[in-house]
Amino acid sequence: MQDINIAIIGHRFMGKAHSNAWRQVRRFFPGNLWPRMKVLCGKACNEELEATAAQFGWEEFDCEWRRVIERDDIQVVDIATPGNLHAPMVIAAAQAGKHIICEKPLANTLAEAKAMLRAVEKAGVKHMVNFNYRRVPAVAFARKLIEDGKLGHIYHYHGAYLQDWIMDPNFPLVWRLEKKFAGSGALGDIGAHAIDLAQYLNGDVQTVIGQLTTFIKERPLVGEGAGSWGAKRSKGKGRVTVDDDANFLARFRNGSVGVFESSRFAGGRRNYNTFQIYGSKGSVAFNLERMNEIEFYDATAEQAHQGYKTTQVTESVHPYVEAWWPPGHIIGYEHTFVHAIHDFLTALEKDTMPSPNFKDGVKNQAVLDAVERSAKSGKWEKV
Amino acid sequence: MQDINIAIIGHRFMGKAHSNAWRQVRRFFPGNLWPRMKVLCGKACNEELEATAAQFGWEEFDCEWRRVIERDDIQVVDIATPGNLHAPMVIAAAQAGKHIICEKPLANTLAEAKAMLRAVEKAGVKHMVNFNYRRVPAVAFARKLIEDGKLGHIYHYHGAYLQDWIMDPNFPLVWRLEKKFAGSGALGDIGAHAIDLAQYLNGDVQTVIGQLTTFIKERPLVGEGAGSWGAKRSKGKGRVTVDDDANFLARFRNGSVGVFESSRFAGGRRNYNTFQIYGSKGSVAFNLERMNEIEFYDATAEQAHQGYKTTQVTESVHPYVEAWWPPGHIIGYEHTFVHAIHDFLTALEKDTMPSPNFKDGVKNQAVLDAVERSAKSGKWEKV
Amino acid sequence: MQDINIAIIGHRFMGKAHSNAWRQVRRFFPGNLWPRMKVLCGKACNEELEATAAQFGWEEFDCEWRRVIERDDIQVVDIATPGNLHAPMVIAAAQAGKHIICEKPLANTLAEAKAMLRAVEKAGVKHMVNFNYRRVPAVAFARKLIEDGKLGHIYHYHGAYLQDWIMDPNFPLVWRLEKKFAGSGALGDIGAHAIDLAQYLNGDVQTVIGQLTTFIKERPLVGEGAGSWGAKRSKGKGRVTVDDDANFLARFRNGSVGVFESSRFAGGRRNYNTFQIYGSKGSVAFNLERMNEIEFYDATAEQAHQGYKTTQVTESVHPYVEAWWPPGHIIGYEHTFVHAIHDFLTALEKDTMPSPNFKDGVKNQAVLDAVERSAKSGKWEKV
Amino acid sequence: MQDINIAIIGHRFMGKAHSNAWRQVRRFFPGNLWPRMKVLCGKACNEELEATAAQFGWEEFDCEWRRVIERDDIQVVDIATPGNLHAPMVIAAAQAGKHIICEKPLANTLAEAKAMLRAVEKAGVKHMVNFNYRRVPAVAFARKLIEDGKLGHIYHYHGAYLQDWIMDPNFPLVWRLEKKFAGSGALGDIGAHAIDLAQYLNGDVQTVIGQLTTFIKERPLVGEGAGSWGAKRSKGKGRVTVDDDANFLARFRNGSVGVFESSRFAGGRRNYNTFQIYGSKGSVAFNLERMNEIEFYDATAEQAHQGYKTTQVTESVHPYVEAWWPPGHIIGYEHTFVHAIHDFLTALEKDTMPSPNFKDGVKNQAVLDAVERSAKSGKWEKV
Repeated sequence: MQDINIAIIGHRFMGKAHSNAWRQVRRFFPGNLWPRMKVLCGKACNEELEATAAQFGWEEFDCEWRRVIERDDIQVVDIATPGNLHAPMVIAAAQAGKHIICEKPLANTLAEAKAMLRAVEKAGVKHMVNFNYRRVPAVAFARKLIEDGKLGHIYHYHGAYLQDWIMDPNFPLVWRLEKKFAGSGALGDIGAHAIDLAQYLNGDVQTVIGQLTTFIKERPLVGEGAGSWGAKRSKGKGRVTVDDDANFLARFRNGSVGVFESSRFAGGRRNYNTFQIYGSKGSVAFNLERMNEIEFYDATAEQAHQGYKTTQVTESVHPYVEAWWPPGHIIGYEHTFVHAIHDFLTALEKDTMPSPNFKDGVKNQAVLDAVERSAKSGKWEKV
Repeated sequence: MQDINIAIIGHRFMGKAHSNAWRQVRRFFPGNLWPRMKVLCGKACNEELEATAAQFGWEEFDCEWRRVIERDDIQVVDIATPGNLHAPMVIAAAQAGKHIICEKPLANTLAEAKAMLRAVEKAGVKHMVNFNYRRVPAVAFARKLIEDGKLGHIYHYHGAYLQDWIMDPNFPLVWRLEKKFAGSGALGDIGAHAIDLAQYLNGDVQTVIGQLTTFIKERPLVGEGAGSWGAKRSKGKGRVTVDDDANFLARFRNGSVGVFESSRFAGGRRNYNTFQIYGSKGSVAFNLERMNEIEFYDATAEQAHQGYKTTQVTESVHPYVEAWWPPGHIIGYEHTFVHAIHDFLTALEKDTMPSPNFKDGVKNQAVLDAVERSAKSGKWEKV
Repeated sequence: MQDINIAIIGHRFMGKAHSNAWRQVRRFFPGNLWPRMKVLCGKACNEELEATAAQFGWEEFDCEWRRVIERDDIQVVDIATPGNLHAPMVIAAAQAGKHIICEKPLANTLAEAKAMLRAVEKAGVKHMVNFNYRRVPAVAFARKLIEDGKLGHIYHYHGAYLQDWIMDPNFPLVWRLEKKFAGSGALGDIGAHAIDLAQYLNGDVQTVIGQLTTFIKERPLVGEGAGSWGAKRSKGKGRVTVDDDANFLARFRNGSVGVFESSRFAGGRRNYNTFQIYGSKGSVAFNLERMNEIEFYDATAEQAHQGYKTTQVTESVHPYVEAWWPPGHIIGYEHTFVHAIHDFLTALEKDTMPSPNFKDGVKNQAVLDAVERSAKSGKWEKV
Repeated sequence: MQDINIAIIGHRFMGKAHSNAWRQVRRFFPGNLWPRMKVLCGKACNEELEATAAQFGWEEFDCEWRRVIERDDIQVVDIATPGNLHAPMVIAAAQAGKHIICEKPLANTLAEAKAMLRAVEKAGVKHMVNFNYRRVPAVAFARKLIEDGKLGHIYHYHGAYLQDWIMDPNFPLVWRLEKKFAGSGALGDIGAHAIDLAQYLNGDVQTVIGQLTTFIKERPLVGEGAGSWGAKRSKGKGRVTVDDDANFLARFRNGSVGVFESSRFAGGRRNYNTFQIYGSKGSVAFNLERMNEIEFYDATAEQAHQGYKTTQVTESVHPYVEAWWPPGHIIGYEHTFVHAIHDFLTALEKDTMPSPNFKDGVKNQAVLDAVERSAKSGKWEKV
């Protein structure tokens, strides 16, 4: 067993989810590298940061990310900040020779994403982009169904990631609603997940045509100190510079068609990351809100016995499940991060490249970019 | 009580559904006009036609539609034929001064549809286009929810009508797969229903961008005498000239965005005519396969108590239901036709124009037309 | 094609459902006997009765059931009255040599039911008891699954038939709430259906222990002229003499255990006639509110692929379905009556005994009787 | 912040779930007592035990439970062993003045349970019985609905806890299948949970009548070293001395009726701990396999708008949820243990008695005892 020292940058929603994953990974997934939670880095060296570090078990805290990245005793930098900071942090970390985990989307622009990929490749470090929903056991199982040919040739892919947390017009202008911080809105935040799952499960998207819509164009400014959910508003108003709702049609390299929806204005859909994939031999359907289940339709079954089968993906033979609990004893959102960290550590142990890595991140960014271009041009755009 | 004499043209799937509706309507919905099932008209005056007429209670049968239309004793012509025959039949019936019910889509082209509308308006007859799914009690109830303001301002509309009955590449080239008979494929057959529900529930579609795909480009020729489902194949092959799969993005007049899917290659979706509508105050979701239910989300409910509520639309206070059975005793597909015929007869009794009528049919056709144009141009097209 | 003359006694809820079945059966199910709807018999020869006869297409109406039964031109008597009238009507009809369909439960007491069976057997007429839910295609399909051994050896049977239509304490004392008319309450009305399905699907019940509960012991008297649903109340109060809620444990002849619930106080369960059957090789689950679906679990499937499969029982290969519509085009409550009448006529044509017949009715009554005895004795009772 | 030293006895399934809870509790739920994971106690001081201690972060391990209990530096003893060991361990721990958490059911007999309660009361220590499903947010929310009067007066309670993990007749004779270790089978293992939820939500059960059934009477002996799930079999056969399936009817103190099922032979039900509660004003339904959801029916809603509403119990205003993730980001099985430990620590901090405690454990045991008595006597038995 060998220690490996971790620094994390970011301490709100994603920082908490990542911290928990570092804490939990070796308690459930044995391995030779033991992650030591060294430094939590935030924007300000205040009591809140100190408390968060203590709460999640980080040995130290800091508020100068360049200083943290350059520490000799750090081997891994985990970046869980708003998108505008990904590029400078990743590039600095690569130059410092650190292995890197970066939250999704990889960057705010395709150019940044490509620069980041060049930086990590030049530095020869390991890199991972945290499309954590690939690590839902049901999603990994869907991938296996497809690889095993259970769906045959894919015809039609529908991905919808719908939420509703900013429907109140008085919900404040948090960083996720400003282009300079977030790059885009529903598109990059949740649409990016839908795209990643699509490319993971159905291969490369080649062309797209999309529409981006901002329903609420001005919002109250955000109060001090808040993250996204539960943010408080302050006086004054500001302009929303990202999309509230992003939809697009796609054509995949394998000839199948794609229909994608992402929206933060879908009332009652709290975290409705869903896909339905229709192939010549079978279909599969998933909903993150019931993430322990997968629905599979076998088109080759006898006519009288056809139908969607709901499998609880909680068997020891399902991906990642053996580490946890007996059948029917479900896992939750945070477990996807534990699985991602486990896969990352395993790649380090085996000296292989983690997956998904920055190449996948660039591919994802290229689709986001094409959707944005098509929304402006009103025409199909190549990825 | 006064008799009104009905002639129907078409005797397969739709002919059967319409015939049953004429038989049943006054048994459950009282009224002053009593429809007398006078003539069933088919392509050939053979035993099959005679037997069908007898089975469903038509007094006579014939195989010359012009002759039937011109009979003085017929007041209503009900057209349930492939789309290429709608225009000549409607125009002839209008000229003969008959009231008309026509199956959807109204025509195979926008030009035809407009000509048909001109014909009926010139003749001053009553006209109805049979978008029967408006008559599902749950759909009519959804409309009421929207009219009552329960959804507030609509943001996002998703309509998907998915089937899977032609997935087998050896399924034969029935008339619905030939442009000369059907006009288009999934688009006009099931997409037209999705569009009608959207325009019924959310108002006019203004612009669209679509993609039409034919996965199986050649199929066995169809054997003699068959309709669509259960058709037998014959020797030889022919080219599929319509789309298997049709998707489009839309913008509605009210500012909301639309995402539409229609496909005959969605394994396990037998008759999956669904919509989800997201508004500022609430959301509603429907699936024709569970057509006695509606899901409603009230965004104005207390936070702890929010969620989708599944209402069985089987109460006496729900549209059309009082005529049938007690709560929870469900109705089926054929009942939508009974409701349509009831509404048609009521309009005749009250000397009002039925709804949806050929104006709605033209509006529908205009969207189909714009989707086809956009699929060729690769750009957004105005409706 | 030969005519057979039908007389029906009863013209409210069940009378309407039966009338429709007689009207519809030959329109969808061909056969050699053509049922002629001769006489509708009610309690009073008033305008309401005349109107109902006209509405459903009965040639005549009458209000003296003995006179109707004794008519020489009647071959079939269909009894759709409250339970207290079943025995005298059946016995009279048998003595008059008529074939008989009788609503369930067969009688209000086991003694009556046995006398009825003796009468029809002595007369040598055909007899059927209308446990119509056996005719739901999904239920008939479940039976086939069991017969085909797909469930293996049955271990555990749960049947629950729950409704909520009398929850309002001011709902009036309709005939179904009076022992002298109905025999029992939830037990005989809906519990009888649950028991019939259990004995149809899982064989004979041998011993039971039950509890019967009346939550609302006094109710307003019922106004004139009303049936059950939608009844109006009158002045004065009367005592409820039947159970509101009836539950029991059972042991089947095949060694499996049974758990049964029936209640009219289960809020939100409008017509929730459900079963789950657990066997060594598989399980099956059904809910009448979604009567076009069946859920099947195959315990012999590969571990990773196990789960409940929801089949839409709407394929042409499923029981009764070919007569109706294409896959996914659902049928409703009333169709079960059409199927029952079809099976009855087929038995007459083939000179076989219909199923379920009065023997099944007696078996059903014997379980009801044992449950009532056990509720009094507080001990297990043999059926 | 003050340390409190914990010792745990048991290191398999429950040991792992408890250990994780001790690890996680303060990371998500702040408090003044900081649990220090001092000793893990198993049956044998072998490498497996040492590894488990290391994995979950216990500072030490031991294999003499009496020695562990008597250590002066231990303040809390957490008992996660088979039921036959609960009584001696609890009594010893009480005598040693330790606060105690004990797994459910509290004991293998009512007499033991009462002795345990006497011991902790005499010692004046805090005690908790780990009916962890009370800590599912959706269950706690259901309780609140009932307390707030949203269900009105309860009429009918159905609880079913179904599993299927021992359906294979060759599954070995693990300790849970031997009366000397487990006390009873499905009854005490999962039925106890169903009873606890019922008494938590609907008050005391007064009388019961039950049936206990063992379908597979002999099984292969169990191999060395195994827990329950995934156990390996050895040579030889042994007799199953507990029930496979346990059902009972009940009468609650509040006049409502109860129907309970518990079975380990319900194919496809992996962890199907469910209840449906029907009251005069509303109903509520829950299924542990979808533990982040609750279904609520409001009988007081307008007729047209009635129906079951599915609420994702993942809002910050729902019990326990604020500590975790944003809406729609679900939690899993293990979180219920974290919540239980949090509540236990809070009680210690506030010097109140935890809930549920041994009094609840005795009440639960009294129902188990009455069910067993009734299964023998064939009559209703008082609790």
